[in-house]
Amino acid sequence: MRIFVSRLFNKTLTQNISNNSHYGFDYKTFFYNLIEAKRADNSYRVFKKISRSQAMFPVAQESSHGKQNITIWCSNDYLDLSMHPEVIEAITAAVKKHGSGSGGSRSISGNSPYHEELEKQLAKYHQKEASLVFSSGFVANDTALYTLGKQLPGVHYFSDSGNHSSMITGIRNSGAHKHVFRHNDPKHLEEQLRHVAVEVPKIVVFETIHSMDGSIAPAEEMCDVAHKYGAITFVDEVHAVGMYGPTGAGIGQRDGCVHKMDIISSTLGKAFGQMGGYITGDRDVIDAVRSYGNGFIFTTALPPHVMAGCLASLKILQSLEGRELREKLHKNVLYMKKELSLEKIPVIPGTSHVVPVIVGDAKASTRLSNDLIRRFGIYVQPINYPSVPKGTERLRVAPTPGHSTLMIERFVESLSTLWKEYNLPLLDHPEESKHSDIQILSHQ
Amino acid sequence: MRIFVSRLFNKTLTQNISNNSHYGFDYKTFFYNLIEAKRADNSYRVFKKISRSQAMFPVAQESSHGKQNITIWCSNDYLDLSMHPEVIEAITAAVKKHGSGSGGSRSISGNSPYHEELEKQLAKYHQKEASLVFSSGFVANDTALYTLGKQLPGVHYFSDSGNHSSMITGIRNSGAHKHVFRHNDPKHLEEQLRHVAVEVPKIVVFETIHSMDGSIAPAEEMCDVAHKYGAITFVDEVHAVGMYGPTGAGIGQRDGCVHKMDIISSTLGKAFGQMGGYITGDRDVIDAVRSYGNGFIFTTALPPHVMAGCLASLKILQSLEGRELREKLHKNVLYMKKELSLEKIPVIPGTSHVVPVIVGDAKASTRLSNDLIRRFGIYVQPINYPSVPKGTERLRVAPTPGHSTLMIERFVESLSTLWKEYNLPLLDHPEESKHSDIQILSHQ
Repeated sequence: MRIFVSRLFNKTLTQNISNNSHYGFDYKTFFYNLIEAKRADNSYRVFKKISRSQAMFPVAQESSHGKQNITIWCSNDYLDLSMHPEVIEAITAAVKKHGSGSGGSRSISGNSPYHEELEKQLAKYHQKEASLVFSSGFVANDTALYTLGKQLPGVHYFSDSGNHSSMITGIRNSGAHKHVFRHNDPKHLEEQLRHVAVEVPKIVVFETIHSMDGSIAPAEEMCDVAHKYGAITFVDEVHAVGMYGPTGAGIGQRDGCVHKMDIISSTLGKAFGQMGGYITGDRDVIDAVRSYGNGFIFTTALPPHVMAGCLASLKILQSLEGRELREKLHKNVLYMKKELSLEKIPVIPGTSHVVPVIVGDAKASTRLSNDLIRRFGIYVQPINYPSVPKGTERLRVAPTPGHSTLMIERFVESLSTLWKEYNLPLLDHPEESKHSDIQILSHQ
Repeated sequence: MRIFVSRLFNKTLTQNISNNSHYGFDYKTFFYNLIEAKRADNSYRVFKKISRSQAMFPVAQESSHGKQNITIWCSNDYLDLSMHPEVIEAITAAVKKHGSGSGGSRSISGNSPYHEELEKQLAKYHQKEASLVFSSGFVANDTALYTLGKQLPGVHYFSDSGNHSSMITGIRNSGAHKHVFRHNDPKHLEEQLRHVAVEVPKIVVFETIHSMDGSIAPAEEMCDVAHKYGAITFVDEVHAVGMYGPTGAGIGQRDGCVHKMDIISSTLGKAFGQMGGYITGDRDVIDAVRSYGNGFIFTTALPPHVMAGCLASLKILQSLEGRELREKLHKNVLYMKKELSLEKIPVIPGTSHVVPVIVGDAKASTRLSNDLIRRFGIYVQPINYPSVPKGTERLRVAPTPGHSTLMIERFVESLSTLWKEYNLPLLDHPEESKHSDIQILSHQ
């Protein structure tokens, strides 16, 4: 009711479409219905209002209905680096010295030594020749795949069915030929590659860690299959960078196959704890995207202070402290998985840091999330269709090094209490899961 | 030579495409040639390395070939707000309190009271019901036009031939019907609208101020024509917001026709001096883009401290100080145009704050820019094809309130010296210009 009163009230204050003219097409009703459709199928999103706090993370303040302290369990700030004193110091020092915005595109006054240093360091981190920073990971994937798809004559894309929206967007909009193979299935990939002539340019596109089910790709095998058929590989390490391998450079580093990943894309907004995205690879490939990618060329460069924060994060990721943060994180993840298993709560099995608790129903996952925050001060966002297939609605939990053992125990205890109250299905035995063969949704 | 040695050297250090397999398609040579093509037609971009300085803006340090103090004349930080002490204070306070990155998408833990407050304030600024912030102005235009194009059944776009790459991208990728009308020509727009049935949904898309020639659209007339034929209007005020109207809300405010602009898009990266972009309009329209726009949904929210900087900028823009900054800026622009005219240097005529000095040749504009920076410490980036049509290559000059009269005089004197040295064509009479009917390039 509150919403409708406020909607009505605001309509009287400002000009809107219906005031302008007598339209043939009824825009007002059309957009109203578009929103109602979202409400009707429970996919309408109401954002939580989160005040994260450097002084008490991972505890934060939520203020949707009065102020409440909460513990955040669904942040992609995987290593809490956004709260790291050295990062904050680097940002404040840079903003005081150089101001905030960059003032222009990279080509027109917006490029700084910070940008160049970060790109140099990122390339080195991934053992590549060059890298290129974008406004976001979404823009990195979209722009790179679009540009490669447009430039490489007659290229065929081979796209994992679990790929993120940003990759699907870039591939689709490029208009290139596309083949979708089953999630993390090198055999299916091979079947598809076999049908395209060897002299035709091909790009195989997949993620090393899937955002929503936490599955880890058989990256080396997939790269080998790709190369066998003359394809190059475009590998999204967005959820892996900072998290795996001796210096955290990702699954490519952990598995010793980074040299088989021809182009790596990643983000500065997850384990880095900052914002932005990048690609890294051969000098000329990166230069081609730099030189032909409109989503890179015609946009304002990120501020120097954001680059300074990323440089500070990168230094920590490669240090002993970074290694310790990863160890603490993975220890927390294992402990949480064990505790959930003891409570017979179903989790998609896997060895990554993502803990997907399967609820299997949109209303139940939303209600769980609401009750967790209201009754226990625990915040984990429900993930519903269209982000995941219907019937696999979930709570995607991501412990960080900052979560204590006690916090993990409280989380599992609270979830278990609600789970039983709702009569949600429990596993028959600890560690069993019905969801090991869970299907990945593909809108490609 | 230096470049090639370095290219060769790096190839030996890292893995690259050619190491991975015997390919049917020669990727290595293909990408090499793609870059060589850019070098061959003088469109290969080498970024200047600019250290902007809060202590001495608009003077900065350039370090491409040794360090040198320069005055920047091509920044889109139009009002120097990126250097404003209140902005810097707001950013440092927020980053200390809340950390740096947002940690997630707006829907998954990345939303903060700063985001909501900024969106509320931006809507109010433009007299609209709602607004939505994106990673950048590019992403705002691209995502909004793509989403509207996909959602509105059978929609027809009417797109100004001068529109920015971000709008062209969104419209094109949506797959919607498209009609391109002559730059700022309501008559041509009307001719095209007339041919589409009144009950068909239509969106007319144009910029109030053109980025590269500074032309100001007859905004009200174009909106009236659009509405007459049952179209809604999507108006890009990227170069106008902060700059025109009593509180700087743009051409819509200056001309008293903001209520005829159904959706306004703008940026936080130019007059705001920060980063990000936004759209503003009717609640349900904005909510539709929020709910269906993948480029908004599946990306990390901007950091709270960036929102804090934008809020500080917005407050200044609406204050007496904001008005004084605009007055100083426009005074500087007028003075520069007068001085250029006295020196008979050709400028595209117009009344906006963009001063496009027409050189008419890519080599000459690049050489001018290089000599200005090398000999006089004056930095203005040359704008060549494909950003502008061949034969209209230019220096796009943007004075700010921070430039002194003396700086302007030195700029014009230095440019005039080089102009004469190069024997570039001068106007016969002050204030005459051969370029009043300059054509806009359209790749749409």
